Amino acid sequence: MSVQVPTNPQPHEIESLPQMNDATLKRFADLIVTFGANVQAGQIVSVGCAPGKEYLVRAVAASAYRRGAKFVDVTWYDPQVKRARLKYAPEDTLDFVPPWYGERMLALGEHRCARVALAGPVAPGLFADLDPVRAGRDRLPWIKEAVEVVNAQTTNWTIVPCPTLEWARLVFPDLDDTAALAKLEESLMWICRMDEPDPVEAWNTRMRMLTDVAQRVTERHFDALHYEGPGTELTIGLLPSHRWKTALFETAEGIPHMPNIPTEEIFTTPDPVRVEGNVTSTRPLVLTDGTVVEGLKVIFKDGRAVDVQAQTGMETLRTILDSDENAVRLGEVALVDGESRIGVSGNIFFDTLLDENAASHIAFGQGYVFAVDDEADKAQVNTSGIHIDFMVGSNDLKVSGLTSDGESVPLLAGGRWLI
Amino acid sequence: MSVQVPTNPQPHEIESLPQMNDATLKRFADLIVTFGANVQAGQIVSVGCAPGKEYLVRAVAASAYRRGAKFVDVTWYDPQVKRARLKYAPEDTLDFVPPWYGERMLALGEHRCARVALAGPVAPGLFADLDPVRAGRDRLPWIKEAVEVVNAQTTNWTIVPCPTLEWARLVFPDLDDTAALAKLEESLMWICRMDEPDPVEAWNTRMRMLTDVAQRVTERHFDALHYEGPGTELTIGLLPSHRWKTALFETAEGIPHMPNIPTEEIFTTPDPVRVEGNVTSTRPLVLTDGTVVEGLKVIFKDGRAVDVQAQTGMETLRTILDSDENAVRLGEVALVDGESRIGVSGNIFFDTLLDENAASHIAFGQGYVFAVDDEADKAQVNTSGIHIDFMVGSNDLKVSGLTSDGESVPLLAGGRWLI
Repeated sequence: MSVQVPTNPQPHEIESLPQMNDATLKRFADLIVTFGANVQAGQIVSVGCAPGKEYLVRAVAASAYRRGAKFVDVTWYDPQVKRARLKYAPEDTLDFVPPWYGERMLALGEHRCARVALAGPVAPGLFADLDPVRAGRDRLPWIKEAVEVVNAQTTNWTIVPCPTLEWARLVFPDLDDTAALAKLEESLMWICRMDEPDPVEAWNTRMRMLTDVAQRVTERHFDALHYEGPGTELTIGLLPSHRWKTALFETAEGIPHMPNIPTEEIFTTPDPVRVEGNVTSTRPLVLTDGTVVEGLKVIFKDGRAVDVQAQTGMETLRTILDSDENAVRLGEVALVDGESRIGVSGNIFFDTLLDENAASHIAFGQGYVFAVDDEADKAQVNTSGIHIDFMVGSNDLKVSGLTSDGESVPLLAGGRWLI
Repeated sequence: MSVQVPTNPQPHEIESLPQMNDATLKRFADLIVTFGANVQAGQIVSVGCAPGKEYLVRAVAASAYRRGAKFVDVTWYDPQVKRARLKYAPEDTLDFVPPWYGERMLALGEHRCARVALAGPVAPGLFADLDPVRAGRDRLPWIKEAVEVVNAQTTNWTIVPCPTLEWARLVFPDLDDTAALAKLEESLMWICRMDEPDPVEAWNTRMRMLTDVAQRVTERHFDALHYEGPGTELTIGLLPSHRWKTALFETAEGIPHMPNIPTEEIFTTPDPVRVEGNVTSTRPLVLTDGTVVEGLKVIFKDGRAVDVQAQTGMETLRTILDSDENAVRLGEVALVDGESRIGVSGNIFFDTLLDENAASHIAFGQGYVFAVDDEADKAQVNTSGIHIDFMVGSNDLKVSGLTSDGESVPLLAGGRWLI
C-alpha cells in the first residue's frame, strides 16, 4: 500500500477541533487523568503538546487540577520548527539536544511526577522532501532519558491518542475534513472503550483477561518464541527469568497506572543475542519524525539485524539503526490477540500506539529491565538510545513457545490464544 | 477610559495569521534575529510561544537556523491552562514553580544562549471572572531567574511585539477582525521602523541620538529627578555612580543586542530609599496575567509606596506588591521623548513593551545593578522578585534634574529634550 501525504500542511476547511462535544471531551480527559496516568493529589503533571492538540491538553490540565494536581507542566513540540532545523542547521549539530531536556525528564522522576503524552501524527509527510539522513539525526521530541525514567518506575504515566485533522486526513483520505475528523474521533473513542457505560470497568475486564494470559505464558518458562507466517520464519530467544507483562503498571511506590490507552498486548524483553531468521512487517511503521516505513523485511543473525529492507522510509530508518551498536538488536516482543478493537476496526492509523496494539510486534533497541527478575538477566537486556516497535502480527501468523527441552507449544494462531 | 474585554476568547472570524505577506514576515524575523537578539552562529536560541504566535516563532526559528543557530528551543505558555489552575488548584500551591523552570533559565545563561520573547496579550480578560488574589499568586510565565540572567549579561536577548487577533481586537475594538489585525500589524511594523528601506540603519540612527542624550544626562551627575505634571509631584533620588543607559546592550562577552524592539527610552536605576511625593499613571498598565490596571495613583514616603490606588486591577496589583518587602520600592526610572513612534501613534497597546516606550515611566521592584558603577551603589540597588513598569509621562509632564548643590536643570518638557 502506498500513502499519499501532503508535503506541507493544508489550510483547515473546518475551524474548530474537536468535533466531539464538551461532555465527551471532559469524560475522555477524566479517563486519561484518573485511570491512565492515575494522577494523585499534590503531583506535578507533565503534558506534551503539539499543534492541533491544544484542546485535549487544556481538558487534561483542567481534569488534573480538579483532581488536586500541584502543577501542570506543558511542553510544546512543533514539527514546523524541526523542519526549519532540518533544512538549515549544520549537519553536525542535528543530534544536539539541550542538556536541560534530559535534566527535566530525570527531575520528573525524582519528583515522582505524573506524565501524559498525546499520540497521533500532527504533520505527516512534513519532512518528505528533506534529506532523510539529516532527518534521522534529529530524534526529538524523543529523548533517551525517557527510557531511564520508565525503567526506574518513578512516574505514573500514560500515552493516549489525540484526534487531529491532519491525522484524520491520513486515516480517511477519501472523506471530507469534517467527516474524516468525526470518523477518526468516533473510531478512537470506540477503541478507547469510551462507548462503554463505564470505560474504566471495561478496561479492567480486558486487563484481567490479558493478565491471566500473561501469567499462563510466563509459567511455561519458554526458552524462545517461534514465529511463522507469510515472509516470516523467526526465532527469538528469551531470558531465563523473563516475565510476560501487560501494560498495567505500578510505580515503584505502588501507584497503578495504564501506560497505553488503548493497550491490547502482553509483552516481555527478549535475549538480544539469540534472534535468528527473517521477519516481514504486516503494518506500516511511522517513525517519530513522521517518516512512514512500509514493507519492512529484516534478517536476524546472532541477534543482530544483518539485513534491513523497506519499500519506503529506508534511509531514515537506517540512520536510526546506525545510531548505536545495539540499535539493531531487539528490546521487546509483544503478542496481541484478534479481540483488539484496533485490529477489528481494520484501519491503519499510521501511529505506533494504535497500530502496535492491532497486531503482535517486536521492537529494535532499548529493552525493559523490569521484565526480567534475575540480576544476571537484567544485565543481558538490550541497551540502546532507541526503541522502535514494528508490527509482525496478523491472522496468518502462528506464534509458538519453545521449551528448553525442545517442545513447541502453540500460543497464538488465527488471532486467538491457544494457551 | 474603560476597556471592554471578553471573558473568554471568541471564535476567530478570520482563520490565518498573519495578514502580512511572507516577505514582510521573513524581513521582520530577520530584524529580530540578526539585530534584536543578534544571534551568533553556534548559539542555542530560546523562543517563547503562546497561542496565536506560532507563525512568528516559526519564522524566527527559520531565520535563526539560517544564521547558523545550533538549536532553537521553543517553550510554550498557554493562558487557558493557567486559567484551569487558577480555577481548580489548591490556593497554597499557586505560587509553586517547578524547579526546572529556573534551572533552564540559568542554564541559558551558562551556555551563553540567545533569547527571543514575543510580547503582546494573547488572552486579554481571560482571568477577569476569577479571584484576583489567587490570580496574583501565580506569576508565570514570569520567573525570577530571568532577572538574574539579565543582570549577569550572559545572554543576548530581545523582546518584540507579535501581532495576534486577540491583541488587535483589544487595540481596535471598533474594527472588524480582518481590519483590526491588518491595522495592528501595520501600526506595529511602522513602530518597529519596518517601513524604512533599512530598518537596522534607522534603529542605529535613533539609538545614536538616545545614546548622546543619555551621555549628556549622565555627565551632570544629578542627585535626584523631579517630576511635575497633572496629579504628579515626585522626587526620585539617584545613586552617586548611576549611569543613564539606552536599551542597546552588550553581553559580558561583547555581543551587542537590542533587548527591546521598539525602544525609545533612556533609563537608570534609582536610589530605592529616596523617593518622595505622589505620582499618577498616564497610561494603563497590563500585568503579566492580563489584568489591566487603570488610573494608578501612588504616594511614596522614604522610598516606599505607602498608598496605592487604582480604578481597575487593584487587588491583583496589591497581591504582587505584597509579594516581598522591596516590591513597593522603585527599581527603574526611564525618560522617553515625544519622537517615539508609539507616542506619535496615539494608540494604547495594553502592553508594557509598547506603552512604556510611548512615555516616561518608573518601575516597582528589581533594579539594574549594571546601571551603577561603584560596588557600594550596586549594594543599594533595589532587590525584589518583581519588576513592574508603569507610565507616568505625557506632554504635560516636566522632568528636571536636581544637582547636589540644589540647582534644578530642565530635562524634558512638552515631549522634548531640554538638555
